[in-house]
Amino acid sequence: MIAVLKDGVSDVQKKNLVNWLKKQGVDVHLSEGQFQTIIGLVGDTSKIDIDLLGGLEIIESVTRISEPFKCANRRFHPADTVVTVGEGSGAVKIGGGNFAIIAGPCSVESEEQIVGIAKAVKSSGARLLRGGAFKPRTSPYDFQGLRGEGLELLRIARRETGLPIVTEIMSAAHLDMFADVDLIQVGARNMQNFELLKELGHADKPILLKRGLASTLKEWLMSAEYIMAGGNERIILCERGIRSYDSYTRNVLDLSAVPMIRELSHLPIIVDPSHATGKSRLVKPMSMAATAAGADGLIIEVHNDPEHALCDGAQSLTPAQFEEVASKVYSIRNLIA
Amino acid sequence: MIAVLKDGVSDVQKKNLVNWLKKQGVDVHLSEGQFQTIIGLVGDTSKIDIDLLGGLEIIESVTRISEPFKCANRRFHPADTVVTVGEGSGAVKIGGGNFAIIAGPCSVESEEQIVGIAKAVKSSGARLLRGGAFKPRTSPYDFQGLRGEGLELLRIARRETGLPIVTEIMSAAHLDMFADVDLIQVGARNMQNFELLKELGHADKPILLKRGLASTLKEWLMSAEYIMAGGNERIILCERGIRSYDSYTRNVLDLSAVPMIRELSHLPIIVDPSHATGKSRLVKPMSMAATAAGADGLIIEVHNDPEHALCDGAQSLTPAQFEEVASKVYSIRNLIA
Amino acid sequence: MIAVLKDGVSDVQKKNLVNWLKKQGVDVHLSEGQFQTIIGLVGDTSKIDIDLLGGLEIIESVTRISEPFKCANRRFHPADTVVTVGEGSGAVKIGGGNFAIIAGPCSVESEEQIVGIAKAVKSSGARLLRGGAFKPRTSPYDFQGLRGEGLELLRIARRETGLPIVTEIMSAAHLDMFADVDLIQVGARNMQNFELLKELGHADKPILLKRGLASTLKEWLMSAEYIMAGGNERIILCERGIRSYDSYTRNVLDLSAVPMIRELSHLPIIVDPSHATGKSRLVKPMSMAATAAGADGLIIEVHNDPEHALCDGAQSLTPAQFEEVASKVYSIRNLIA
Amino acid sequence: MIAVLKDGVSDVQKKNLVNWLKKQGVDVHLSEGQFQTIIGLVGDTSKIDIDLLGGLEIIESVTRISEPFKCANRRFHPADTVVTVGEGSGAVKIGGGNFAIIAGPCSVESEEQIVGIAKAVKSSGARLLRGGAFKPRTSPYDFQGLRGEGLELLRIARRETGLPIVTEIMSAAHLDMFADVDLIQVGARNMQNFELLKELGHADKPILLKRGLASTLKEWLMSAEYIMAGGNERIILCERGIRSYDSYTRNVLDLSAVPMIRELSHLPIIVDPSHATGKSRLVKPMSMAATAAGADGLIIEVHNDPEHALCDGAQSLTPAQFEEVASKVYSIRNLIA
Repeated sequence: MIAVLKDGVSDVQKKNLVNWLKKQGVDVHLSEGQFQTIIGLVGDTSKIDIDLLGGLEIIESVTRISEPFKCANRRFHPADTVVTVGEGSGAVKIGGGNFAIIAGPCSVESEEQIVGIAKAVKSSGARLLRGGAFKPRTSPYDFQGLRGEGLELLRIARRETGLPIVTEIMSAAHLDMFADVDLIQVGARNMQNFELLKELGHADKPILLKRGLASTLKEWLMSAEYIMAGGNERIILCERGIRSYDSYTRNVLDLSAVPMIRELSHLPIIVDPSHATGKSRLVKPMSMAATAAGADGLIIEVHNDPEHALCDGAQSLTPAQFEEVASKVYSIRNLIA
Repeated sequence: MIAVLKDGVSDVQKKNLVNWLKKQGVDVHLSEGQFQTIIGLVGDTSKIDIDLLGGLEIIESVTRISEPFKCANRRFHPADTVVTVGEGSGAVKIGGGNFAIIAGPCSVESEEQIVGIAKAVKSSGARLLRGGAFKPRTSPYDFQGLRGEGLELLRIARRETGLPIVTEIMSAAHLDMFADVDLIQVGARNMQNFELLKELGHADKPILLKRGLASTLKEWLMSAEYIMAGGNERIILCERGIRSYDSYTRNVLDLSAVPMIRELSHLPIIVDPSHATGKSRLVKPMSMAATAAGADGLIIEVHNDPEHALCDGAQSLTPAQFEEVASKVYSIRNLIA
Repeated sequence: MIAVLKDGVSDVQKKNLVNWLKKQGVDVHLSEGQFQTIIGLVGDTSKIDIDLLGGLEIIESVTRISEPFKCANRRFHPADTVVTVGEGSGAVKIGGGNFAIIAGPCSVESEEQIVGIAKAVKSSGARLLRGGAFKPRTSPYDFQGLRGEGLELLRIARRETGLPIVTEIMSAAHLDMFADVDLIQVGARNMQNFELLKELGHADKPILLKRGLASTLKEWLMSAEYIMAGGNERIILCERGIRSYDSYTRNVLDLSAVPMIRELSHLPIIVDPSHATGKSRLVKPMSMAATAAGADGLIIEVHNDPEHALCDGAQSLTPAQFEEVASKVYSIRNLIA
Repeated sequence: MIAVLKDGVSDVQKKNLVNWLKKQGVDVHLSEGQFQTIIGLVGDTSKIDIDLLGGLEIIESVTRISEPFKCANRRFHPADTVVTVGEGSGAVKIGGGNFAIIAGPCSVESEEQIVGIAKAVKSSGARLLRGGAFKPRTSPYDFQGLRGEGLELLRIARRETGLPIVTEIMSAAHLDMFADVDLIQVGARNMQNFELLKELGHADKPILLKRGLASTLKEWLMSAEYIMAGGNERIILCERGIRSYDSYTRNVLDLSAVPMIRELSHLPIIVDPSHATGKSRLVKPMSMAATAAGADGLIIEVHNDPEHALCDGAQSLTPAQFEEVASKVYSIRNLIA
């Protein structure tokens, strides 16, 4: 961390500042130029509050050189983390060279629907089943999910297919209900729901942490750090598009996040092309692109109910379309792996 | 709501669609041009799921004409909402011509600190006291607030000064602890924590709802709608800056949100120049600008502890600086009111 | 195009509006609901000024249903455009199934440099040579390019290798100097330099039109339309990243623009992973991703001067690194084509 | 400027780097920590190319401490610049405590229109007349302005009213036609048309430099620097809103740019509330807010043609509305000045 002092700071002020910084447990190097004084802070600066330091009257600017995340930082954990989801013969590994596709409907609607989709996507190469039971909707008047009943239907689908199940949690108060969910998803809107993250830090479950709507990579990794600081290091990151000023796609899928996160962190990273684009016809090219960029997996929305197609989201594929996407994705994965 | 059909939709498909839409309880007007068919939906379209409709294979695009929020919508509630905060002689009205400044420290640190600041800002014209007890910090290693003890210190400051207290809630699980907080703040990071919003819908407390980091006005009002749909209509909105690509200021303070929200909604709207800019020297001009734009109030950070100035944020004013700001603000308010 | 009238518009006003609209040469369909009147405009609405219409006192909102671009619109030109760059045996086709890599240095520096790079990238599979002669630099104090001398060095490199040359124009006043440039590039900062675009509309040269720093797809295609409206239909679009709030990468590479543009337009689209990311180590994964997303080509920065490596940009590959990237790119291209 | 070296850089590499930096004319301070080596560059670093330095293999990051602009930098020119526009008795000063309103139509349409508006806005307190002769339109099919004829009509209006005239230039090739324009405007889309900026650097005319659509404050000041480096220091900056993800307003008016630019630079800054919001009903509150934020002036669109109201933009005021705005603006200005 580097701090630049303002012009005209007195020697007493400098001395007080240096003493205060040393008390925080870091080494302090003072470098005085003709016009500016620069302070280099070396050691474990992750516990120094950059806003607090930058807020001092005598400081012109502060720049972090090393990243503020520790548990999630590749510098301190060079080897890729491999997260195992599910148990026994159905367990699936993600990260460290292990690639997997998660597929399923936006919302769990009925046993017939979820079991039907689960069987279809399994046969096309999906390794995990997703399905929303608790739904974060912008409007209180939109369908909020089947909640507890939805979780029960997911369990049935798991029993029928052996696929581990992935579903979103919206409140720490629901944690008991999620006791046998295989991979608990934290949605984009809760990425900085810090009280939830802290609770998940004590859960014995892998977590799928989606990137926030307009989150920086650093904020995202700091949210992972919240969970890891509590002891739970089984985290899979999920890029799902970031807010933009253009309306052709719902979000901008930031695929450069894949190699960039891989450089910054040892955690696996997967990509959600369905939510990112909001258009089913873009799912195939963006799934292929995400795979070529080196993602550790994909999470793709699939619906299976032609008679009620009215209720399917703009971003969902049919099982037949999913099969085509999965086939292309695996051929690219085989080429680059 | 207007839907445009794709080319080549059959008459049977059109008929099925129209029947399905009528079942949702809206009137349907079909307008067939040479190349395009347009469907106008009239009535209470707030309960139609726009993503669902837009996702149909036969739909090219859907546009909402009327806003999806009802309780928060000025069209249905032309008169300004006035929110009363606190009780008895200390009660403060905000909205409908009533203007108030909320002031106080970023974090509650000690009785001496919070009581000292409370007295100072009261004497300069603040009508409510803010102070963070639960702090949403990007890093798990940064100070997380005094939590319950902080709430207790706020109560002491209220007893000493009579100022109603405003503080942030981070989880519905803490609601009991907030039973005698006068105005409960929902922070930017929790603006779409829908489970929390639903719980606050049943609380008998006014809510200060901050705009999300990169939230649209519509999303913000829909979050207010979540609370109001539960029965709690005592909401004050707070513009606090939105994410931008420039780093000179922490966020971009979107002051056009003030007249725009006033047009869309009957709810009061105040402005937070401290968090928006992240620089104490910008608080004065932006407080004056917000007041001139017609805000119903301001929320301003003030610190008072010269010996520990090291711990004060870049965005906080001293009590003397606050007095100068408040004086300028009231003179502008008097001019325009 | 659909216009929604405000409440309370009189019959006379409606009639005047309809008459005025008909004079613009479009069909007008009036659809009167209980609360709202909707006007559908059918026909060639590309010449209706949406700002002008939306600005009328009696109009609540206007929505374009069909796109405002005509020449660039796939609806009116279903077949892919194939742009041929260069002449004779060295001519290269881009678009309509033809894929090509453009490579070369950020700036042309010397004959030795540009010829050396040209030979190296040609042997690794590049089909065109890029090199900046006129450089758009944020600072007037940064190197502005060799200008005319740089163009001459590019011609020498073309003579030596047969590769067609691609270089950026910054002013219509330079057009004479660009007479034998094979592909004239319009940079992101000039994407809405409309006077330049109009001049290029009369040039008998293919144009490489980069997306603006924060341009929507529609604005980008409208800039292509400016050139095409003048008669020059040989345009290649280039996605080069858009502005974002995160600083890990210089821009966000918006790869969903590739399939989205392909849907909207018949023009070829290539991708520039070097400028988009600003980091040479991200060029390989993002080149692979862009190819998998279906791009018609890539434009990649390569430097070749180990002794002066100090002067090479963060985003440039060495020839050896470029060879590795090109090899991976062609293997993905072969898989998907 | 501070550069941080990567781990494992050899002593020879360090020595070479230091020598190279010294040749650029700056002092170099090396500060070696246990894990990291930091290089402080002191002196005139404005001529060091930060991209070039940051691109070196051995560099981890580079941070500019002092700003890269010199002529525009308040540090080197503490006193406010006052720009005088027009000549003789009609000359108007802007900056350094001098406040002025520029008003007029979006486009010059006829002598009657421009003279009528000029007289009306003059009587309400406008000090300069704006009017577009060359219009930058997103679509080539939209009205492009009366061009030379529009300039002639502006001259007539100046003769009739004595108001200096302000109009936009779109190409350096038109400079001769602008010889007697009093204040030449560079629009947002041309803010980084560097060839145009260089030409204006040699013009003997004050320049109104609008902020780019998604420009940072630094980029904007660097564009001013392009003009000033050529010798023309008579620049007025104009904040006109920046691109955002929300569609209620056309842009987000960034009023914190007013005090922030005043801190960074000595140049005057005015605000354009009409283009920023795109809604005439927001012009009044945002004009008042801009004035309260300390702007040196405003530029406001006014139309005057009730019979052809169809052709007026959504963002224009009538003369009566303008009079009301101007009156409120001057009362705020008097309060704060």
